[in-house]
Amino acid sequence: MSFVDAASPALPPHADAPAQPLHARAPAPGGIDAIRGQLDLILPLRHAGTRSVRIAYEVVGPADAPAVFVAGGISAHRHVAANDVFPEQGWANDLVRAGRTLDPARCRIVAFDYVGADGRIDAPIDTADQADAVAALLDALRIDVLRAFIGYSYGALVGLQFAIRHPHRLHKLVAVSGAHRAHPYAAAWRALQRKAVALGQLQCADVQGLSLARQFAMLSYRTPEEFEERFDAAPEVVNGRVRVAAEDYLDAAGAQFVARTPVNAWLRLSESIDLHRVDPAQVRVPTLVVAVEGDRLVPLSDSVALVEALGRPGQLRVLRSAYGHDAFLKETDRIDGILAGALRTTGETA
Amino acid sequence: MSFVDAASPALPPHADAPAQPLHARAPAPGGIDAIRGQLDLILPLRHAGTRSVRIAYEVVGPADAPAVFVAGGISAHRHVAANDVFPEQGWANDLVRAGRTLDPARCRIVAFDYVGADGRIDAPIDTADQADAVAALLDALRIDVLRAFIGYSYGALVGLQFAIRHPHRLHKLVAVSGAHRAHPYAAAWRALQRKAVALGQLQCADVQGLSLARQFAMLSYRTPEEFEERFDAAPEVVNGRVRVAAEDYLDAAGAQFVARTPVNAWLRLSESIDLHRVDPAQVRVPTLVVAVEGDRLVPLSDSVALVEALGRPGQLRVLRSAYGHDAFLKETDRIDGILAGALRTTGETA
Repeated sequence: MSFVDAASPALPPHADAPAQPLHARAPAPGGIDAIRGQLDLILPLRHAGTRSVRIAYEVVGPADAPAVFVAGGISAHRHVAANDVFPEQGWANDLVRAGRTLDPARCRIVAFDYVGADGRIDAPIDTADQADAVAALLDALRIDVLRAFIGYSYGALVGLQFAIRHPHRLHKLVAVSGAHRAHPYAAAWRALQRKAVALGQLQCADVQGLSLARQFAMLSYRTPEEFEERFDAAPEVVNGRVRVAAEDYLDAAGAQFVARTPVNAWLRLSESIDLHRVDPAQVRVPTLVVAVEGDRLVPLSDSVALVEALGRPGQLRVLRSAYGHDAFLKETDRIDGILAGALRTTGETA
Repeated sequence: MSFVDAASPALPPHADAPAQPLHARAPAPGGIDAIRGQLDLILPLRHAGTRSVRIAYEVVGPADAPAVFVAGGISAHRHVAANDVFPEQGWANDLVRAGRTLDPARCRIVAFDYVGADGRIDAPIDTADQADAVAALLDALRIDVLRAFIGYSYGALVGLQFAIRHPHRLHKLVAVSGAHRAHPYAAAWRALQRKAVALGQLQCADVQGLSLARQFAMLSYRTPEEFEERFDAAPEVVNGRVRVAAEDYLDAAGAQFVARTPVNAWLRLSESIDLHRVDPAQVRVPTLVVAVEGDRLVPLSDSVALVEALGRPGQLRVLRSAYGHDAFLKETDRIDGILAGALRTTGETA
């Protein structure tokens, strides 16, 4: 179901009872419990109509610990970090482990594969759809209130929707590198990536199109500073064509991405970022906005505008990083420090 | 021959005598003289071998006025501005006219179509090739020395090569939005544009590929500030797909571009930018480097590095503009002011 679980244990056969979580719980002798499951939900999607959606999730940590939902970019998924039961690397592997703020011995980490991540929905998907799916998943898991929703990139957009639509289920939102609406320049950049896929699809070269789209996306996730440091070698002429130093890296990034991503999933989740528009004044949950100076997708000015519109519940932290939009995944010590501060004050502000 | 002359008068039939300029001189009653011509040159190209290259040029202004060569981006051409003889709009129409520093009544404006602009060369083209073609063109026009070479974008790279290879033919170089080597991030951005063309070519959809490449290039020429001002409308769902506000503009830009650009010309000139590497220490001609803060292709730090490496002959002017890389074409009053200062001091510094 999920497109990232190649290395995970087989799941039990799926039953059709809606809102009935199916757990794959492997024993963790002396370790931290972790479960994976799938859930069939009937969800009224804003553009795709009411339909049955299968939600794949992972929960790590003690059942009585405070729950924290972690949501990443559109290519993130339910497996945030390696754990005793599912030891493969996760997408934010260095942020969830012993010694970190998100220590699975002390909090219960909940994550899922986004609605649409399996490629089965061929219609626009709203961030509100994702927020409602999170709420339904929490119902099924019998989690009333989250200590925090930590959203990065697309996850920040979903977190804002969750805070607006389900305010009583959340003590604190941490929204990293995401704002109330897509910046028009970033939206244009993504629209052109989708056109690259469409160009590939003209000739059943979907995979080449998606690879090219991913490579353009990589440029938006990183910064000129990083490229200068890594790829300043002179170009070469290969088979009569000029080939620049970054091309090997970008080719590899594209190939790695298409191997794990259904074209439709990427297209619809990419669209979903651009469709996102919320009114920050509707957020009444304490919200920490984390902005990265140098982020080429979410400019600092948008994070500032978001915090100003949030009013009293809003706070801003600014990080300067050569990793730009990807700082959450790369500057893990600094992000962990920010999360520590945010979760420490949760009790007081909630 | 040139791909931009649809509206220009018919040229005389071409003769094969090398280095023999062919002039189309239309009478300009009471106005400024302007000629167009073509020149066949045998040029030793660095990657394409020694071959015959046809150079299309335009010269505007009195024969006894000081000559200024003007060279623009890879899609620029010999027709810089409307004039009495060739009244159609040029690519830098507001910079060359009465009242401007580049007043064709007081200087002789020389410009050409880049080597490769006709799409006939299917091999890498070096900026040194362009510089040598400029020198050969000046020979044919009997112009010994240029008062100034004004190069913008790709033209700045060609200007640096010209200053290094033909120092005695030049009093002053003005290099706007171009440096000693392509920035690795900008090079990657262009390499991906070339891949978009390659993806289109897989299925003989060259034109769609080139259109997409141009649209990605537009993002690099402009800035988020401009897009925010122009394209902040909410996205729409059209035929089941999300369409963002900038897409109409980008589609139009792509269509306009492919109508006038041979695919091969664009590919090879795009490569040429990335192939460019010069040692600024070899430039001994007084050089004004004009940088635009916010240029997403040529970061200010690269212009600063260029000026530092130029040493004594180098000067820097920095412009802040929401137009980014395209500021030369958009901030024409401010650019004209900079050119006025640069050309005024030419006598003293040369």
